[in-house]
Amino acid sequence: MHTIPELQELITGALAVKKYGEAPVELYEPIEYIMSLGGKRLRPCLLLMACDLFGGDVIQAIQPALAIEVFHNFTLMHDDIMDKAPLRRGKQTVHEKWNPNIAILAGDVMMVEANKLIMQVDNAILRPVLDVFNETAVGVCEGQQIDMNFETRDKVAVDEYINMIRLKTAVLLGGTLKIGSIIGGANTTDASLLYSFGEQLGIAFQLQDDILDVYGDPEKFGKQVGGDILSNKKTYLLIKALETATGDTLKELNHWLSVTEYDPIEKVTAVKAIYNQLSIREQAEAEMNRYAEMAMSNFEQINLPEERKSILKEFADALLVREY
Amino acid sequence: MHTIPELQELITGALAVKKYGEAPVELYEPIEYIMSLGGKRLRPCLLLMACDLFGGDVIQAIQPALAIEVFHNFTLMHDDIMDKAPLRRGKQTVHEKWNPNIAILAGDVMMVEANKLIMQVDNAILRPVLDVFNETAVGVCEGQQIDMNFETRDKVAVDEYINMIRLKTAVLLGGTLKIGSIIGGANTTDASLLYSFGEQLGIAFQLQDDILDVYGDPEKFGKQVGGDILSNKKTYLLIKALETATGDTLKELNHWLSVTEYDPIEKVTAVKAIYNQLSIREQAEAEMNRYAEMAMSNFEQINLPEERKSILKEFADALLVREY
Repeated sequence: MHTIPELQELITGALAVKKYGEAPVELYEPIEYIMSLGGKRLRPCLLLMACDLFGGDVIQAIQPALAIEVFHNFTLMHDDIMDKAPLRRGKQTVHEKWNPNIAILAGDVMMVEANKLIMQVDNAILRPVLDVFNETAVGVCEGQQIDMNFETRDKVAVDEYINMIRLKTAVLLGGTLKIGSIIGGANTTDASLLYSFGEQLGIAFQLQDDILDVYGDPEKFGKQVGGDILSNKKTYLLIKALETATGDTLKELNHWLSVTEYDPIEKVTAVKAIYNQLSIREQAEAEMNRYAEMAMSNFEQINLPEERKSILKEFADALLVREY
Repeated sequence: MHTIPELQELITGALAVKKYGEAPVELYEPIEYIMSLGGKRLRPCLLLMACDLFGGDVIQAIQPALAIEVFHNFTLMHDDIMDKAPLRRGKQTVHEKWNPNIAILAGDVMMVEANKLIMQVDNAILRPVLDVFNETAVGVCEGQQIDMNFETRDKVAVDEYINMIRLKTAVLLGGTLKIGSIIGGANTTDASLLYSFGEQLGIAFQLQDDILDVYGDPEKFGKQVGGDILSNKKTYLLIKALETATGDTLKELNHWLSVTEYDPIEKVTAVKAIYNQLSIREQAEAEMNRYAEMAMSNFEQINLPEERKSILKEFADALLVREY
């Protein structure tokens, strides 16, 4: 088996030599650009770990792992247009550095490139791998649309929110792990268990992200603390607070959601105080732990010796105790 | 073998019952909408004809044929955003009727849907079919980018223009026919010949479109005659005229390309007079015929009895004598 740094090096090395196309340069430069912005390469690494878990040859899983990274960056490129995001990993987004048309078209080509990369598997598993990949891709698009719908809606229920983050974030983790497991030679039962593990882990991970936005250590979190509060983003915390609050507390929360001119620190402090009063953090952590435990329960059912599973298990544990 | 109306009915029937997804409706309504706008369904029909040509079961080719139509409409949906086109087949474009974000995301889902549909072939031909499909998809995106590049360039050479229309329009016809032939059981040589036939036919078809814009019968052409002239579109005719014209003629042509306020009829008449003076129509028709003949030469080399080939041959002939 391989250590995580070994697998990360395989990914970094493969990405460093990966070529996306020659001409027209207007189409391929933005692809080289977004792919070079870095990031943790979490998803391709997970694919290799899943393959390795079942004793597969990780070298054979490298191109499909890149497929997932290219696909993920395609969705980021298109999402950034939709969200009018100026920055991605601290650098200009593609639609800002070039223009939206180029970001649309370069994204489209990345989607095709991802399809070409994911096909680099044995014929015997080509169809199952593609089936998982396509289902995952549809889910991610649906999740993005539901997320956009939430922006203009007054009320979002908790289960609607969980379904949105499941689609937008978690199915890709599930799908990535499942594809890795198929390449690694897992049977259908174990591949499905690993999918569920990834999906539930992804939901827990996103809930943690919501919590960190308010309660994270600003130095470790790397983002502006309270960013979600300032943008009135319908996170688990806000949805739960709106559901729980009554009387004056609800009135005050709605006030902060409606004011257009305010002192940012004052708003974050006030909303955080409401969250504290309603024990929102504890509820969010309980929900996060519930998904983490479901994830681990699925993982434990995978029919492999404990020592084989330790690397992925430690990785999942580490993922859920980030930067508090 | 099947007649063209029979094949068209198979396509229309399959499209009528095709479902794209349920929720979120914001994502699937625009897909239903653009797919219901009609059109000649030329490409899916060509795929069935190619399958039929080699004695394949056209019923088994229906879903892959829909893949091509869904893919084609995905490119139209994204191209319309980039071109800021208000209308498509006389109806509001998706980004106008909804918004650009929805048109981006619905297009992305259509691309995935096309991938799912194209996979509905036997395992034995899954990889070759997908390889053709992916290469085609990359070509179409590259063609669109080159077309956009031309808008801001002063000078475009004839061979650059031919390469652009080859990528943007012709490779999809070639790829469609090749996929149909693979499903129909063609050998590699015949599949490649049919690809070349489709690609060259596509180039001839686009050149004809350029000619029709200026010389077409307005009642039969269905578009505003001279539309390309009014928008200074770099068609084969304009590129050739700029290449051929000298002295006062060149000066006059450049004048019409630079004026911002003009009487439309006067501009179309004047530019058309320059084209006539330079025998541009004849040159364009010669180029079109050259590609049509190359297409037919490839078609003739396909190792099948003449009577099997007659339907596709007549179809190609009919395609190139539209609405003068």
